[in-house]
Amino acid sequence: MKKFKVLEIKKSVFASNDKDAEELRKKLKTDHKFLLNLMSSPGSGKTTTLVQVINRLKDKVNIGVMEADIDSDVDASTIEDETGIKVIQLHTGGMCHLDADMTKQGMDGLGMKDIQFGILENVGNLVCPAEFDTGATKNAMILSIPEGDDKPLKYPLMFEISDIVIFNKIDAMTIFDFDIKKCEERILRLNPNAKFFPISAKTGEGVDELADYLFDLYKKNTL
Amino acid sequence: MKKFKVLEIKKSVFASNDKDAEELRKKLKTDHKFLLNLMSSPGSGKTTTLVQVINRLKDKVNIGVMEADIDSDVDASTIEDETGIKVIQLHTGGMCHLDADMTKQGMDGLGMKDIQFGILENVGNLVCPAEFDTGATKNAMILSIPEGDDKPLKYPLMFEISDIVIFNKIDAMTIFDFDIKKCEERILRLNPNAKFFPISAKTGEGVDELADYLFDLYKKNTL
Repeated sequence: MKKFKVLEIKKSVFASNDKDAEELRKKLKTDHKFLLNLMSSPGSGKTTTLVQVINRLKDKVNIGVMEADIDSDVDASTIEDETGIKVIQLHTGGMCHLDADMTKQGMDGLGMKDIQFGILENVGNLVCPAEFDTGATKNAMILSIPEGDDKPLKYPLMFEISDIVIFNKIDAMTIFDFDIKKCEERILRLNPNAKFFPISAKTGEGVDELADYLFDLYKKNTL
Repeated sequence: MKKFKVLEIKKSVFASNDKDAEELRKKLKTDHKFLLNLMSSPGSGKTTTLVQVINRLKDKVNIGVMEADIDSDVDASTIEDETGIKVIQLHTGGMCHLDADMTKQGMDGLGMKDIQFGILENVGNLVCPAEFDTGATKNAMILSIPEGDDKPLKYPLMFEISDIVIFNKIDAMTIFDFDIKKCEERILRLNPNAKFFPISAKTGEGVDELADYLFDLYKKNTL
């Protein structure tokens, strides 16, 4: 029996997304809350990574998740079944990204009262989500090994705006050509402050380091 | 020394994309030309698949390729170096898809006079390209094994509008859970006429069948 809500997101009517995003970020700060916006291509392992991270942090901080998707409730179900934490499914009705107003709709739908660490799993897409500031405290993105190390060349904005880059599916390094060093150099050219975490959400390798870093980031930003 | 042109695509000012697309499709038919629109997530292997298919068909028909990308000329270089056929790089300037007018700009830039079989490699994205008819004769999409068999549930429109679904990276089946049968059933519920081709663009497995099918499709549509 699923407990999570499904929310049909309305298209934003506000023109000034950057202003809305800044206001949301300030409000989060004032409320001592942290919001992480997680982006990636379809199928790079956002939900599996979240399950692993949440299960390492849920006893230390109250976490709530917003799962954005064009359609289907697959991801909210997975989060609920495998972590037991509070989750809401956001349906974007065909929209390829979330903006700050849509993020606010999601937070209101989820109910942030008891939540200190919110996570927004954005629509699987390397293009549009990079163009719209959601107002989240920090941006993270996942690049999975099978996608190839040339992605920073092709989707530069996504790498420019991501504070954290997670290399997922490193257990598949044996069968894919992926030069992590070269990829990191490409990303650092776009974003000199990017932090890198090679992980396998499947085997759990590297997830402790990622979870610790995110918990520190949460504490630093909610002081 | 690269020979291919790089074209900065202009945003379409026309409101009626569906009408433009129908006109382009009719014009292709009248001119006995075929245009294939190839879509997928970032990193699922569009360019590698094209190299394999083109090298099997280029002695039978004149092929020309339009490589659409936000930025970078990586893919046009690969096509030129590894097939020697005519190719143009289209830069979308941040746009997440191509529409019919942008496709026409690309065809004019490429020069279609001597080309019977055109291929448009769309922007890597499962959301936006599905919403804009490019005017191509047929749509194909690639779903790579590492992306997971749940993608038809999450990006239904892409699977609904794709005449051909290519399952790429089947050489990676050993390390990823991917149920092709289940995935095909999910797709057929959205699109009962979809044709399936499991391939490995890396090893060449299954590419002969795909190339033969595309050549027959080209012949059937240019009679």
